[in-house]
Amino acid sequence: MARTAALIGAGVIGAGWAARFLLSGWDVRVFDIDPGVEGRLGAVLENARRALPGLSDRPMPPEGALSFHATLSDAVAGADWIQESLPERLALKRKTYQKIQAHCREGAVIASSSAAFTPSALQGCATRSGQILLARPFDPVYLLPLVELAASPANPPGLVARAQGVLQGLGMFPLHVRGESGGGIAGRLQQALWREALGLVREGIATPEQIDEAIRMGPGLCWAEMGPFETCRIAAGAAGMRDFISQIGGSGEAPELTDEVLETLAGPPDAPPGRALEQARDTGLVAMLRPLKWADRGAGAHLNRVDAARPGPEIDITRPIVTSEHAVPLDWTDYNGHMTESRYLQAFADATDRFMEIIGVDAAYLASGGSFFTVETHIRHLMEVHAGAALRVETLCLGAEGKTMHLFHRMYSGGTLLATGEHMLLHVSLKTRRAAPPAPHVAENLAAIAAAHAALPRPRGVGRAVGQGR
Amino acid sequence: MARTAALIGAGVIGAGWAARFLLSGWDVRVFDIDPGVEGRLGAVLENARRALPGLSDRPMPPEGALSFHATLSDAVAGADWIQESLPERLALKRKTYQKIQAHCREGAVIASSSAAFTPSALQGCATRSGQILLARPFDPVYLLPLVELAASPANPPGLVARAQGVLQGLGMFPLHVRGESGGGIAGRLQQALWREALGLVREGIATPEQIDEAIRMGPGLCWAEMGPFETCRIAAGAAGMRDFISQIGGSGEAPELTDEVLETLAGPPDAPPGRALEQARDTGLVAMLRPLKWADRGAGAHLNRVDAARPGPEIDITRPIVTSEHAVPLDWTDYNGHMTESRYLQAFADATDRFMEIIGVDAAYLASGGSFFTVETHIRHLMEVHAGAALRVETLCLGAEGKTMHLFHRMYSGGTLLATGEHMLLHVSLKTRRAAPPAPHVAENLAAIAAAHAALPRPRGVGRAVGQGR
Repeated sequence: MARTAALIGAGVIGAGWAARFLLSGWDVRVFDIDPGVEGRLGAVLENARRALPGLSDRPMPPEGALSFHATLSDAVAGADWIQESLPERLALKRKTYQKIQAHCREGAVIASSSAAFTPSALQGCATRSGQILLARPFDPVYLLPLVELAASPANPPGLVARAQGVLQGLGMFPLHVRGESGGGIAGRLQQALWREALGLVREGIATPEQIDEAIRMGPGLCWAEMGPFETCRIAAGAAGMRDFISQIGGSGEAPELTDEVLETLAGPPDAPPGRALEQARDTGLVAMLRPLKWADRGAGAHLNRVDAARPGPEIDITRPIVTSEHAVPLDWTDYNGHMTESRYLQAFADATDRFMEIIGVDAAYLASGGSFFTVETHIRHLMEVHAGAALRVETLCLGAEGKTMHLFHRMYSGGTLLATGEHMLLHVSLKTRRAAPPAPHVAENLAAIAAAHAALPRPRGVGRAVGQGR
Repeated sequence: MARTAALIGAGVIGAGWAARFLLSGWDVRVFDIDPGVEGRLGAVLENARRALPGLSDRPMPPEGALSFHATLSDAVAGADWIQESLPERLALKRKTYQKIQAHCREGAVIASSSAAFTPSALQGCATRSGQILLARPFDPVYLLPLVELAASPANPPGLVARAQGVLQGLGMFPLHVRGESGGGIAGRLQQALWREALGLVREGIATPEQIDEAIRMGPGLCWAEMGPFETCRIAAGAAGMRDFISQIGGSGEAPELTDEVLETLAGPPDAPPGRALEQARDTGLVAMLRPLKWADRGAGAHLNRVDAARPGPEIDITRPIVTSEHAVPLDWTDYNGHMTESRYLQAFADATDRFMEIIGVDAAYLASGGSFFTVETHIRHLMEVHAGAALRVETLCLGAEGKTMHLFHRMYSGGTLLATGEHMLLHVSLKTRRAAPPAPHVAENLAAIAAAHAALPRPRGVGRAVGQGR
């Protein structure tokens, strides 16, 4: 059942291909003259195992078998797909195809990862030109879906469709580039951006760092979600895309736009994009921005700095402590705009983190090897809440004995109780991952709050089991 | 305490500014000759309320007051910040600054949103040139952090820093562009991408749709996370960025790169980026890709199509039903690589959704106005699990009576029990948001599973309350 791919050249791109094929259940045979290839490929494979399978909500097939081969002829024997990812030297590639074709199956696909050459150029001196086509991926190959496919008139009809089928099976997005444009579509756009970026550096207008910031804090986010045209179509608003394009043209070298091209670009004159598209765009942007905060990358790192500069709620341990206060994030809601079930626990877990910080379980304490782990949780969902609504969590410490900590969170929007969360936590050593007593200062801080809160009334819902009579 | 911004021109950009100022607690005074301005601005403001406050983990200040003014002189009176977002006509902008300066405070900042003109050009005929600078935002202004600031020699020292302070207070990322480059940094990069995209369309190589796909399925994702240089630095791998840049140059017009420029770009020759950077990049990419699945946008829509083509687990109602099977996503884990507390509930909620689908609560049923809402949850966290590990949820129906449904999920990795989730759900009308009986076919399907599962042993942990003796 497993199919076999031969990878000729296993640098960054070739190793990325290897990971994608293996994790999609293919057997992979590698030929690379670099003596360090096994180590390098192993590292890429480990990266891929961490990131790729979890992209899917379905189980991945069992991993294929990986083997390294001392000769090219051995590597390509019996392979269904042969991917060449050698340095961009045409003579080297052509010579390699001749060797490959002397030993591979006639029905195998030979695909080149080249970013530099057209299919015709690659096929130049081949024994069977029709077997060779272009399939250019983008780094990291095991995560980015795009692969640009290009064929020449020498390729038999049906080969592109067959290649598309294989690449779709790897979870990729094969884009068939018609004609033989050198550099494909994404490649030419990358080049254009690069040329301008290098120009800005050469002219002394911007540093590489500033260029990166300008992209990842701004237009790059829209491009990632929508690409340049859809970005423009929505940004153009009621004024229409024609106006927008001519305005864009206004501040640089104006592109020559015939009416015909404008029609292709803009669609019907001045059709407004409408609220639905704007809101879909915003949903996508928030969906990227908030997880970038979690990853502390790009614009997310900026948003974390913004938060750090804003004051949090004041702490008063004589009352239930306000451990969280913010608006319901858009990416916490469902298609109806209501907060999603699991985000209630996320809000409570954030509140628990803040409570831990208050008793001294901060970054330094975590680094010293101690923390509290939640072992048990009970949630009552009482009322719904929408994106943008104010959210506030108040935390009561129900008890603290030895290694345990017993918390009760109440979530409000204004005066309305939305949900409660009861949680039992256990102090652990992060080294052994087993229960261990907290450091004395943490135990003292916790005891002080537990004592203060013992005087407060026990809220309704404490100690409930699921389905217990009301 | 609230400060006042005057917005001159409230099209897409001006209305975006209005939303950002208002939601940051500023009073906003609008002047726009369009009679439809109140409606348009209201719509943008509604979009912003849905999306912006939730980007922050801290509470936003109370919204400022919004007012519309019939005259420019009235709008700018007493304003601390005056933002001009008029069409890109220099004469119009210059005339407007003269009017503004006749009525505004001398200490107010007058900022232009222009994408087309330099600060010197804008200041041309002003009464007080030093008061005017460039602050160019990007659409949607209320979500994208980037704002490019540029000043001329006519501006007093300290003005840029003051403007940066104001813009940071709005949660923005003010990037000071030195010199007076027409179009700034991001603008020039946008133009360059646009020129190439229009060229590809004009040459008949790609459709606008293909160009959008090529960007959002590939390089656009890296640009959004990292910008072009960091993308390149990591992709270059051990071969080093010098090599990479010269290879990139190989397939288009090669940029002229002196050794000095190369040094600026690439840093020390051939310093490898290392695994840590690669993994940070992957974390950021997964952090964007999975929420794009949730939003069903861009590459996320593609990944949803990939999942739909993969078979799910088979259904056998005589045993606990396998309701979920996939690998632990990277964005479900913490800095240690362990699955995060709230993602346990997400896995259980996903399993509940699948169970509902099985009993007939599918998209069509939801559209008809019925669903089950979770009212109560109990989770036991038993073991930890890492990114990429296999995850499987088996669901037992503990009971179903009238409007209620009682489920018990067990989460495994291989043979190891990681957690259990007990959930009480109530069938509701999505119109009234109140309890209502399920449709007959749903009730029958559910009863059949409940009857089959009644014969199975009750697992340990059913009916537990938090902290109950073990």
